This record gives sequence, C-alpha cells and structure tokens, in this order.
Amino acid sequence: MNFASDNIVGASPQVLQALSGANAGAMAAYGGDEITKRVKARFNEIFEREVSVFFVTTGTAANALALSAAVPPYGLCVCHREAHVIDDECGAPEFFMHGAKLAGLPGVGAKLTAESVSAYLKGLPKAVKQMPPKALSISQVSECGLVYGLSELKALGEVCRGHGLVFHMDGARFANALVSLGCTPAEMTWKQGVDILSFGGTKNGCLMAEAIVVFNKDLAEGLDYRSKRAGQIISKGRLISAQFEGYFEGDHWYANARHANRLAKMLSDGLIQLPGVRLAWETQANEVFPIVPAAMDKALRDAGVLYHPWTELSLPEGEKVGQGEALIRLVLSFATQEEDVRRVLDIARSAGSRQAAE
Amino acid sequence: MNFASDNIVGASPQVLQALSGANAGAMAAYGGDEITKRVKARFNEIFEREVSVFFVTTGTAANALALSAAVPPYGLCVCHREAHVIDDECGAPEFFMHGAKLAGLPGVGAKLTAESVSAYLKGLPKAVKQMPPKALSISQVSECGLVYGLSELKALGEVCRGHGLVFHMDGARFANALVSLGCTPAEMTWKQGVDILSFGGTKNGCLMAEAIVVFNKDLAEGLDYRSKRAGQIISKGRLISAQFEGYFEGDHWYANARHANRLAKMLSDGLIQLPGVRLAWETQANEVFPIVPAAMDKALRDAGVLYHPWTELSLPEGEKVGQGEALIRLVLSFATQEEDVRRVLDIARSAGSRQAAE
Amino acid sequence: MNFASDNIVGASPQVLQALSGANAGAMAAYGGDEITKRVKARFNEIFEREVSVFFVTTGTAANALALSAAVPPYGLCVCHREAHVIDDECGAPEFFMHGAKLAGLPGVGAKLTAESVSAYLKGLPKAVKQMPPKALSISQVSECGLVYGLSELKALGEVCRGHGLVFHMDGARFANALVSLGCTPAEMTWKQGVDILSFGGTKNGCLMAEAIVVFNKDLAEGLDYRSKRAGQIISKGRLISAQFEGYFEGDHWYANARHANRLAKMLSDGLIQLPGVRLAWETQANEVFPIVPAAMDKALRDAGVLYHPWTELSLPEGEKVGQGEALIRLVLSFATQEEDVRRVLDIARSAGSRQAAE
Amino acid sequence: MNFASDNIVGASPQVLQALSGANAGAMAAYGGDEITKRVKARFNEIFEREVSVFFVTTGTAANALALSAAVPPYGLCVCHREAHVIDDECGAPEFFMHGAKLAGLPGVGAKLTAESVSAYLKGLPKAVKQMPPKALSISQVSECGLVYGLSELKALGEVCRGHGLVFHMDGARFANALVSLGCTPAEMTWKQGVDILSFGGTKNGCLMAEAIVVFNKDLAEGLDYRSKRAGQIISKGRLISAQFEGYFEGDHWYANARHANRLAKMLSDGLIQLPGVRLAWETQANEVFPIVPAAMDKALRDAGVLYHPWTELSLPEGEKVGQGEALIRLVLSFATQEEDVRRVLDIARSAGSRQAAE
Repeated sequence: MNFASDNIVGASPQVLQALSGANAGAMAAYGGDEITKRVKARFNEIFEREVSVFFVTTGTAANALALSAAVPPYGLCVCHREAHVIDDECGAPEFFMHGAKLAGLPGVGAKLTAESVSAYLKGLPKAVKQMPPKALSISQVSECGLVYGLSELKALGEVCRGHGLVFHMDGARFANALVSLGCTPAEMTWKQGVDILSFGGTKNGCLMAEAIVVFNKDLAEGLDYRSKRAGQIISKGRLISAQFEGYFEGDHWYANARHANRLAKMLSDGLIQLPGVRLAWETQANEVFPIVPAAMDKALRDAGVLYHPWTELSLPEGEKVGQGEALIRLVLSFATQEEDVRRVLDIARSAGSRQAAE
Repeated sequence: MNFASDNIVGASPQVLQALSGANAGAMAAYGGDEITKRVKARFNEIFEREVSVFFVTTGTAANALALSAAVPPYGLCVCHREAHVIDDECGAPEFFMHGAKLAGLPGVGAKLTAESVSAYLKGLPKAVKQMPPKALSISQVSECGLVYGLSELKALGEVCRGHGLVFHMDGARFANALVSLGCTPAEMTWKQGVDILSFGGTKNGCLMAEAIVVFNKDLAEGLDYRSKRAGQIISKGRLISAQFEGYFEGDHWYANARHANRLAKMLSDGLIQLPGVRLAWETQANEVFPIVPAAMDKALRDAGVLYHPWTELSLPEGEKVGQGEALIRLVLSFATQEEDVRRVLDIARSAGSRQAAE
Repeated sequence: MNFASDNIVGASPQVLQALSGANAGAMAAYGGDEITKRVKARFNEIFEREVSVFFVTTGTAANALALSAAVPPYGLCVCHREAHVIDDECGAPEFFMHGAKLAGLPGVGAKLTAESVSAYLKGLPKAVKQMPPKALSISQVSECGLVYGLSELKALGEVCRGHGLVFHMDGARFANALVSLGCTPAEMTWKQGVDILSFGGTKNGCLMAEAIVVFNKDLAEGLDYRSKRAGQIISKGRLISAQFEGYFEGDHWYANARHANRLAKMLSDGLIQLPGVRLAWETQANEVFPIVPAAMDKALRDAGVLYHPWTELSLPEGEKVGQGEALIRLVLSFATQEEDVRRVLDIARSAGSRQAAE
Repeated sequence: MNFASDNIVGASPQVLQALSGANAGAMAAYGGDEITKRVKARFNEIFEREVSVFFVTTGTAANALALSAAVPPYGLCVCHREAHVIDDECGAPEFFMHGAKLAGLPGVGAKLTAESVSAYLKGLPKAVKQMPPKALSISQVSECGLVYGLSELKALGEVCRGHGLVFHMDGARFANALVSLGCTPAEMTWKQGVDILSFGGTKNGCLMAEAIVVFNKDLAEGLDYRSKRAGQIISKGRLISAQFEGYFEGDHWYANARHANRLAKMLSDGLIQLPGVRLAWETQANEVFPIVPAAMDKALRDAGVLYHPWTELSLPEGEKVGQGEALIRLVLSFATQEEDVRRVLDIARSAGSRQAAE
C-alpha cells in the first residue's frame, strides 16, 4: 500500500514492451533514428500543430532546460513559492538558467492567479538592481493536486503577453490534468498562451521519459545544444522515444491517467465520509490531501500504508491543521490497485470507529 | 553492417532482462531502493575498496559531473586536444564546471604522456591571469583506440600528485580497456592514482547506464546535489541500477568486451594483410583505425558498410594519410556478428583485388 | 539637500588627495605595488591579526565574490529577505556563486536572530532535492539602519559554527556600525565568528574602494583568481589602495562615520519631537527612518529635499504605516552639512505647524 | 625606464583633473548624473551615430561583458590563440558567457585573416556535439603590436555576416590603432561591420575607465543588467564618466596616443639600426617587439630597463628566435619621456659596440 508518489513503480507493461521491442538491431544514435522521427510526428498530431520536441530523462531536466530557453541569466522567473522548480529540484533551474532567479509567490492550493501575478509584476522596482521578469512557470497539476481551469490559464497567458513573459507549464502530471479537465492537449496549452511545456511521461507509465514541447518557435533555438551540454541527449535515443510510442499507442496514457484519477476520487470520497476528515484541497487529479485525525494517521502508518505528510503553507485563508490533526498526501498512479484503496479506507474507517468508541 | 559506433544497438539481452525484472512493484524512488544498494556494494567488490558511486544516464553527464567535482570554476583541466570532453560534448564540462577551461594538449594516438603534461604544467605562467591547473582527464580507451598501460597510468598519476591535480579517467570504454590489459579494475584506476572515474556501461551492453566512481573521498562531497541539480537523478532510480546488476552478473560485462575486442582484432588482422592497408594506430581494444586506399573506402561504403572517417591530427610523427587514401574508424561492439566482420573483410579484399587488376 | 543615499557625493578631500598623490610615476601593475603592500599591512593592524584582503570597486562585487568563496554552486546562503544581496544586486551573488540560492528570512528591522536562523535550518528537509545551507550573510548596518550588537553577532556566529555555515558580513556601512557600537573592528567581526567581510569604503569617503577581508584562511584560496575572472582586478591597482591609505590616515574613516552618525542622531532627535512623527526603527547609525504625516512628506519633497520612500516589510509586529502617513529613509554621510539637517528640520516643523493650524 | 606595459603609471594630468573637478557636490548615483549623460552624447558624436555605451572599470570586464551579450552559453567565440580574452583574463569571458568556449586560431602577429577564420568555420562538424560559432573577437591593436587595416577589418566583417557571427573588437589600445591608421572611429568599427567594441581608456590616460560601445542595438539589450550583476556599475558613476570627459576634451586621447606611437617608432627605428637587432613584427602602434642579441637583453636589464620577454608563437613562418637571441616587448605610453627612449637606445648601442669589440 504505497501511496508515497507516482514514481515508486516501474513502467506500465505496455511501455516496457515498446521499449523491449525497440531494443534490437542497429539504428542511428543520438535521436537520428526512425522511431524518434515517428514519435515527433505523433507530438504534432497530439498538439494539433507543429511543435518542437526534446526528450530528456527527468522532469527536473525538462523544467530546467525549458526555463533556460526562456529566461536570460539576469532574468526573473515567477512561480508559486511551493512550485517544484523552486522547492524540489536542488537549484536545477538556477543552474541551467545560469543564476537567473525564481520568485516564489503565495497562492491557495499552490496555484497562482492572474491578479496576484499581475500585482507582483507591477510592484517590481524599475531599476537595474532589479532582475527583470522574463517568465512565468506554473504546475499543472499544482503541488496541492489542483488543476488550473482553461479560463484561469487564459488569464495567466494574457498577463504573460502583457508583460512580455514566457509562459511555462510544468506538466509532470500533464495527463492527469488533461483527463480531469476533459479538454484537448492543445486547449490546455498553446491555445491559452502556453509557450513551452514540460510534458511528463514517467509518473504516468514510462520508465524515464519526459519531453520539452515548444510552441513558441523562438524558444526552440539552441535547445538541442543546451540539452547536449546538460548530458541529456541519450546516445541510444530511440529508447526514450520508444517509451513514448508505447505510451501514446491506443491512448494508453489517457487510460493510465483516468485510472489514477478515478482511484483518487474513490479514495477521496471514501475518506471525507469519515468523521473528523476533511480535504485540504479538492481532489481534482490523482492526489488526495486529507486532513485527518492524528489517530487515523497513526493507524494508517502502523498498518504499513506509505505516504508523506504535507505542508499547510497553501491552505485557504482561515483554514488550519489543528492540534491532533495531520495533513497528508496520498498519490494514486496507473499501477495502484482498487483493492489497495479499499484496504486504506477500511483501515481509516476502523481507526475512526475506534476513536469514536473511546 | 553498422560499424559507426558502439551505441547504435540497444541493450544486450541480459541487461534488458534485468531491467524488465526490476520493473514491477513499488520501491523507494530516487535511488533509495534495495537494488541500488546491492549494486553499490557490488562496485565496492569490483574495485576492491569502498568507493562512492553516482548513477547517470549519459557519458557526457558522467564526465561533466566528475570534472565539476574536481575543478573549481576558475580552474584548468588538462586533457588531450581530441578528448571526448573537449571535442564531443558541446561544452558540457564547461557548463558543469561553471566556466572552468579545458586545455587540450597534442599527443600521438590521442594519448598524453607524463612528460608532455609535466612540461605543459611547468610552462604555465605563475600569474593571476592564468587559470590554475586543477585536474587531468584522460580517456581509457583513447579516442584513437589505444589503451594506456599501467606504467603509463602510474606516471600520469605521479604528475598529478606532484602538481596537485585531480586525476580523472573517462572510461566510456572501461571494460574494453580492462580486458585489453588483462588487469583488475583496481589496478587500472586507483592503484595508479586515478581519483575519479567515468565508468561506462552504455557502449558495452546497457541501455543508458553510466556511473561516476569516486576513489578520493573528498571529491564525493556534494556530488549527489550536483547530480540532482543537473537533472540526472532518475526518479525510478532502480531502473539504472538494475541495468548494472544485469551487466555485472556472471561477468557479463567482461564477456561483452572480450567479444568486441576479439572481433576488432579479427577485423584488424584481416585488413592489414590487404595491399595498401595499414593501421593509423594499433588495435588495442574494440576500434580499428585503418588507412585504406580510397577505392576500398568507396567499395565498403557502396556495399552499405557504415563507419566514420577519422582525423589524422594525432598520427605518429612523420605519418600521413596520402592522397588516394582514407583514414577510417570501425567500431565493434558486444552485438557485432562475426559474420559481419567476415563480410567486411570480403568486400575489402575484393576491392583490393579489383584495384590490383586495374 | 540630498539625503537619497551616501553614494551621491564623490570622495572626501583627504581620500581624493591620497589618490592624486599616488598617481604619478611608474609602479608594478595589478596590485604588485608598494602602496598596496602597505595598505594590506594596515588591514592586519586594524583587525589585530593576519587577514587576506582583496580590493574591488563595488560593494556588489565585494559581496558576490565573498559569497562565491563561501558557497558551492549547489548551496544555500541564508540572509534577511530585504538584504542588499538578495534585493539590490540584480542577482550578482547568484551569478558569482554559479546558481547557488539565497534564502531570505523575515526579521524586524532587516535583522536576523540566532533563533530564527536556527529554526529555519532545522526545518529544512534532509533530502537531495534541498540545496544544503552553506553560509549566513548579514548586513551590518542592516537595511533598516539597525546595528547588530556584539552578543547578537556572537549568537549568530555560534549558529554558523553549529551548522557548518560560513558567516559573512556585508559591511557596506562598516564604519558607521563600528562607531555606533564603539568597539574595535576585531570585536565586531572575527571575534564573534565572522569568517569573511565586505569592508565598505565608498559610502564613507572613498571614490570606489571596497575590500573583501578574509579571516578564515581557507576561504581566501582562489579568491584572487575569482576576482580576476570577474574583471575586478584593476590594472592600475594602487589607485584603489591609495584611497584606502587616505581613508585610514589619521583615523579619517572614524571621523567621517562619526560625523554621519551624529547628524543622523540630530535629524532623528529633531524629527521625533514633531507631532505625528515616529521612528520605524531606532536611529543607530547614519540612516533615519521616520514615519511622517503625508503632508510633511509632501512639504519636504516640494522644498527639494531628496530621499526615498521605504518598505514597511520589516516593521515590528503590530506596527503599521497608516493612511496619511509615509515611511521614508534619509541617509546622512560624511559630506552632509549640519546646516542642511537644520533646514530639513525647519521645513518639517513648518509643515507640522501648518497642519496643526488647519 | 619602465616599458613593462602601458598601465604602470596613473592617469594623465588632464584626466585626473577632470575626475577631481567632478568630485564635489551631490549627483544621482549609478550613472544617472549629468556628466554621464554628456559623455554618452559625446560617444555618439565620436562614432557619428547613436551607440549604446556601458562604463566598466577594467578591460577584462569590458571584453567579458561584451562577449556575454554576443554568445549564448552553448556557443563558440572564435579568436586568435594569443588573444587577451583567451590568454590573459583568467577565464573571465568563460565566466561571463556561462561556459561558452573560446576557440583560439593561429595567425602571424596575433592577427586573424578572413581566410583562416572562414576555413575554420567551414571545417566545424555540423552536429549537436559541436558548439555553434556565434562570435569573432579580434584585438585592435593585436597582441603583437600590429594594426588591422580597414580592408582586413572589412573582410573579417563579411565573414561574420556570412556565418551569422557577432563581430567584437577588443580595443584596449583603440586610440593607438586609430592614430596609426589615421581613420575615424566610425571607419575602424561599425563601417567595417564591427558590432560591439571594448573601448579602452585606461592604458591611454585614464585611471580606470573602459567602455563597451554597442553598434548592433540587439546586443545592448540586458547589458545594463549584466553589468550590474557583474558588480561593474560604480555607485559614484560620474567618476568614470568624468575621466572620459577629460580624456576626450580637446582631443586629449589622440594626443596621448600619438605621443606613445611616435616614441614607439623612434625606439623601433633606433633599435633596428643596431647590429643583430631585427623586429619580430613591424612597429605599428605603441609597442616594439625586437629580437635582440642576448647580451643586449642583459645589458638593458642590468641598466634597470623594465620590459617583458615575449613568445615566438606568432612569428611569421620561417622566422625564429635564435640561440643567443631574445624576443622582447617594450611598451610606450602617453607618460613615456623621450629622454627615456634615448637612454634605452644608448644602452642598447653600447651593448652592441661592446659585443662587436669582443
């Protein structure tokens, strides 16, 4: 019963098989092969336009490379103060951007609003001592499991246009957001003004396959060199593209994400029926953030359920984790079994009953 | 008949199987898993001492990260002027070292001698305008297919000690060098003064698995953070370690390297018996660098044999590629078929005969 | 009546004369001259021990270079969230530290306490995604005009030792702090655990002369190379050292700082006697931060008094700038005339009276 | 008799006076003052068009900043292998360019030809492993004292256009080149295709005043931020501009350069009349590079004449420094006395006579 993250299992069988199938025989190295060519064309189809695609092996590399194409070394990149790029990547963006700075703004549910970004930008001193803002980076799904709606994205896109910022989307859980909104990849990205996207594959079924998808052509210039000098161009390049081929085949990626989101909903719905349990943030994708009684937290851990505590930094105003409560995160993935969700709910329910009895 | 490089095929079956076998089930992410623990212990055994090991996905990343641990941003790293680090990595070392410089020295067969390195170091101005030398990087196997002997390594190691340099070995073809020398990994590295090693797995049978092996403990400090910020720590970390597990199992890596070296010898021996063919550099590992008549070059290409022309920059003094000749490189790998070697030799032989007849 | 900053005048006559006097004749370039040698010895005397000194032309360069010696590219430097290094240097520290990050903590009066720093450090995740803290940087005088007392410095020094951090002091207004505390340079620095100091000369009488003073010998290694590669080693190096020679001669620097601090006290004392005026932070050095009625603010500006509005971010808890009030900063320097202070007070007083009359 | 360099004296009296004259009174800091405004307008006049000007304190900073505006971090900058930027700046360009690489080409007299640059560019592999060339940097005057003629500059400018390179000129001795050619600043720069210029003032009479002059508007974008984050924006900014004001006043800079060049010619003409003396490279500006008998070298040194030995790396083909000979560099400046030149010639003559007599 491991709900620690969606990267604790390997690949989904279909992806692994695609990889194995592409293994034999000689092909051009460094992405000059046929599979890579096919997969790049597939990305064009998926996004309903020509895009530039660069394959990397980690989400951190995807984000950091994407931002390095968007922000000059003296620039500022606006993001949420709990964003993965600012909090979980050991300074990778700063490294790849050569010292450019991330400005972390507050926001409920780890989401930014057009208003708060706009106000922040207007308040910046107009002086050479102030690094000039050059990009906005948001996480779709957010770090609190929320999904930006299309109108929210549109509004952020307009702020970016208005202030000359590149709009970057960290889509480590892109598929989960997509099936949550029920829109097309195009609608969730460039149609709202997104310029460059970190397109995650690993969390939703690949072994190690992430892509940078560039909508704004200018940003693609030199990105291959940047990737090479970051040691991110795999010599046996087809082994990344093959994963994506399996991932896309028969809308496998949608199916994986739907499964994870559905189980998250199931877990979430079950939990909030229990006394003393409420959600820190609505369950919109494949993560559940309940605030539970400490006793329930303990019971779950004692039963061997694995998950992480979470920070209350981005709770809605007025909301608080009380004494005797715990805010936790449970992540569901393509590989999670429905039965495991039921067992977790059973354990939680028992803990609740015991507590009521006491 | 693809002899372009040893990265044009996928993984060897045994490695692929190890990867597949490690795919199912949940494990701690980011290298906190059991497989990774086992493989790290295996590295200690292989090198007959405690070593620090960091897994990455490309040789470029391994080299660049290793050098970043060795050279401060204002330092100089001495290498051969045809070294992979200076010539083939799009500035990755300079990126990871934050602007530190590579000084490329000449040397026959892309090898450096203790004498030439020492003379170079002594000739450097003692002034603040001169970046101070901090590391020496050599390629074992060299870019011209030569293998440093143990006494050569020892002499270079002593120069490093004498001048306070870190000694780095780019072992992209580590196994091929090892079976060529018939020595132990320990003898080829730290016993001769090597401080830090890029240990290649990809070219000799892995999908994408390289390791930085650190003998000098001080250099390991912070390397995990450096790797993380370079986007090189795979979330499903076991999928790299599992490759190494398969690679080491039953001395599979030795077998792979022996096969490649043996076929190289076979190809080399066959070629030099043909009229007008001579070797630019002795065949010591899994690469053959013949100088062939232009007609033979053409015949091979026409027959669909794939390989690269090579530069004559590091030919022995006095040696030259004449008009009507071509210096080419043929690379043999674990996956090369003996039959392919025979076919190449047949084509070359026919071309030679035809030419003689004309 | 320019109170905008302490860098709006040129040099004090004594410093200018020292510069002029050192101008003629040939001397070794790049700091190899006799004057530089003498001044470095003078620094040893001033700090009552051997120190390493590096001359630069701006405070930003001093801070950024000092931090680059203290923090590896993957490290974290803790500072106040309004610190000059994080807020006013356009990312110079991040540039010189090659992407290392500044973590800005809150604190009244732009000061940090040992408790808050300690709590922050303890709260950091122990994981490779988290950049490890490597240095603490404080501003003495703080950005709100406050001076750390010796016991406060000592406590911060102990936190640094306990967590393995380098302790950096931004002493852009070092002399003003010194005469405020009435202690020795040694007592205000290394005796409390400061490892490396940005020693400002420009704001207190030099043209462009700042020094990095290193107490922890290890941090001096390579700093000359770092400075050279930052374009900070002036070819006619004596022209910086000569400024310091004039600056130190006859305790000129103390006299300059005493003058500025005394006028600040005079201005401050005068202002708080006026109705509706209070201090945001106590006047401890050469800057005054009054909260004044908007009408007084307007009157001062109308009369041509130059100064900057200030942020209320670091006000004491519960304190606020009300509607109809303005928080402003007035900076006094060695060149400020007592008469100008009187004129400002007169204007403020009249404004106050007029307002009372209305 | 110090001929070591043209940075071993302070400022010329006229420049020093301009600095002193600008010292008193309050003005806007960070270059927002009237003097700076005036001097920038003066640059427009001098170059007969609108230019962007950025003031810095060292030639190294000027070069490194200029190149950072021209070359992305993954790019290549072509220069002569003895160029100041590659050889004498401790990696400043690599630091400011964030790891971009300098490619040093050979060339007689430390000059590059359009042919050699063009051939080099054409020979570069078209592959992502190869950093793409983005700029050409030349030194006018060259490191061997030679001056590029207008047609040579034009040809290099055309190569740059043809290959999409930014054309940078290191004009540390700009004035000396200018009076040597007898052309206008416009003719020596943008009219031949120069995009960005390091305009030296220090060697020809300033204390510490260099400027980056940008002709290609695109390159000016962000350069103020780059300069600020490099710690190169002096707070008392007028103190740099004032130097330039004095420097330009009454064509003082021309007079200084003419004086230095004239004395160089005088020294050069005198020396080559002596037996056994010849010039390594023609004397075209303010440096003399004679090859002299070892005995003469010794006699000069014994008499206290200060100068540097020089490398023979860029001698014309076939030329060599023989045994018993020394290649030396003597630099003349605005401050050199004619009498000193005569004394040097006397000493050299005596040494020659003595040797003949023996």
